[in-house]
Amino acid sequence: MEKIYDVIIIGGGPAGLSAAVYSSRAKLKTLLFEKAACGGQIIITDLIENYPGFDSGVNGYELAMKLESQAKKFGTDFVFEEIIEINDGKTKIVRTANAQYGAKSLIIAAGTKIRPMGIKGENEFMGKGISYCAVCDAPFFKNKTVAVIGGGDSAVQESVYLSKFAKSVIVIHRRDSFRAAKSLQEKLFSIPNISVKYDCVPLQIKGSQKVEGLIVSNLKTKIQEEIILDGIFVFIGLIPNSEHFQFLKLENGYIITDENMRTSAQGVFACGDIRKKQLRQVVTAASDGACAAISVEHYLDDGL
Amino acid sequence: MEKIYDVIIIGGGPAGLSAAVYSSRAKLKTLLFEKAACGGQIIITDLIENYPGFDSGVNGYELAMKLESQAKKFGTDFVFEEIIEINDGKTKIVRTANAQYGAKSLIIAAGTKIRPMGIKGENEFMGKGISYCAVCDAPFFKNKTVAVIGGGDSAVQESVYLSKFAKSVIVIHRRDSFRAAKSLQEKLFSIPNISVKYDCVPLQIKGSQKVEGLIVSNLKTKIQEEIILDGIFVFIGLIPNSEHFQFLKLENGYIITDENMRTSAQGVFACGDIRKKQLRQVVTAASDGACAAISVEHYLDDGL
Repeated sequence: MEKIYDVIIIGGGPAGLSAAVYSSRAKLKTLLFEKAACGGQIIITDLIENYPGFDSGVNGYELAMKLESQAKKFGTDFVFEEIIEINDGKTKIVRTANAQYGAKSLIIAAGTKIRPMGIKGENEFMGKGISYCAVCDAPFFKNKTVAVIGGGDSAVQESVYLSKFAKSVIVIHRRDSFRAAKSLQEKLFSIPNISVKYDCVPLQIKGSQKVEGLIVSNLKTKIQEEIILDGIFVFIGLIPNSEHFQFLKLENGYIITDENMRTSAQGVFACGDIRKKQLRQVVTAASDGACAAISVEHYLDDGL
Repeated sequence: MEKIYDVIIIGGGPAGLSAAVYSSRAKLKTLLFEKAACGGQIIITDLIENYPGFDSGVNGYELAMKLESQAKKFGTDFVFEEIIEINDGKTKIVRTANAQYGAKSLIIAAGTKIRPMGIKGENEFMGKGISYCAVCDAPFFKNKTVAVIGGGDSAVQESVYLSKFAKSVIVIHRRDSFRAAKSLQEKLFSIPNISVKYDCVPLQIKGSQKVEGLIVSNLKTKIQEEIILDGIFVFIGLIPNSEHFQFLKLENGYIITDENMRTSAQGVFACGDIRKKQLRQVVTAASDGACAAISVEHYLDDGL
């Protein structure tokens, strides 16, 4: 270990990259780990309409490249390797298969991964009619027919949201009743262009260039049918990438922080989708990253 | 009052405009008030280097125009008038000199204004050698001597900017070291035509038709001296524009909110620089705006 960084950032999505912009611009020696390509979840998003400042929208990959280049411009080092182990001592040690790195502080921006349906066609049509974010993609389905997969708060809430755009929303849920909050359910049942198929699971996605249909199977009757539609929104949960952070206070796998991104461990900060919070958007992730970097600066200034 | 909006947003800076993007995109009927031109404080910022996503930086005015156009694209209505009174009933009523407007909810994004020095000569010489905006007025001081008052990020950053125009920049700071980011300080110390007077406060401005001198007092030695100069740039902080929001819980004039931007009043949300928070940046304001809009959506969904 030749060099001790001021801060190691884990994750190269909007939260991690924004943290890198802020910390390296503040002259902190900054190292960012990303196991794949920078961008996190946005890399698969065709058009982000609601990141403030891009009035014509911005392609997710393009935004990721801009963020990466901005962080590089201010001097962030990047390592594109997967992390194997983290040691939370006074000096934080991060190990990959090839090397180990030390830092005075840690910003965790490892994000979440989407719980996939795991059915045929899902990977193929990603971004071509399959979405995991209604706020992001609903406007692309004006006057179209969409299915929502799931029965929890997100699925029901996002169905309500989608109903303002789509002609018809069909909710596909594996059980015979929703798990979502009653008030959300009441809202959903009051909306005429939402229908529900209970006891059903998605089996296979059909289409040529983009999603055109979904085969579902009724778990009780065993009858299969194909629904003709234009989009499928999947809300069967997210999985926080917190397997290496079990030494922190977590809730359902999400890292608990205060408003300044401090976790339960000294010198360890978390930002973006991996932390427990209400709204997971590019702009909130970027804001979290900025706050985390400034908190690191304060932490280091205070004599550590 | 012909129309009740879902939400009225007060203030057209990054927080208000981002809230407008999110709320109008969510199909909420949205009205935004701005008393001058959109952009808030960024409108006078030459280059914003750290708004994530603009890897070459972005001019403040240009970013403001992009934000405004993005909000307009999704259907936000704008009223460019000053607000005279706000009535926080179940329906929120906003009055201007010409009309009144109603809404089911309110997002306050009224920002902050510049704090004056409050010394003799300040009002008298406003615009005659006293400025609060380097980008606006630096070109008037080519090859002249100017003082900068303050020691935070703004003071140091604007001193660097002014040094490109003025013959000599004298920074007057009440403490014995700057609060500004290290990188900014390094930059400042590397510039030969900038000098610093620590432990000094401005006492009185001298001049006949325009600023000709500044009397400063050293807090440690108690010695007063008159600096002969042509201009004074003031960067000593901000005052929240909360005069119309005294019905809310405030701290030093800043509106207290929770992480979801809820204030102490039902259906009233606050975001951006006007709320009590650690880090006031364009990206944190934009994130706040997004959160406030989503909180409004939840508030309206819950049956009010």
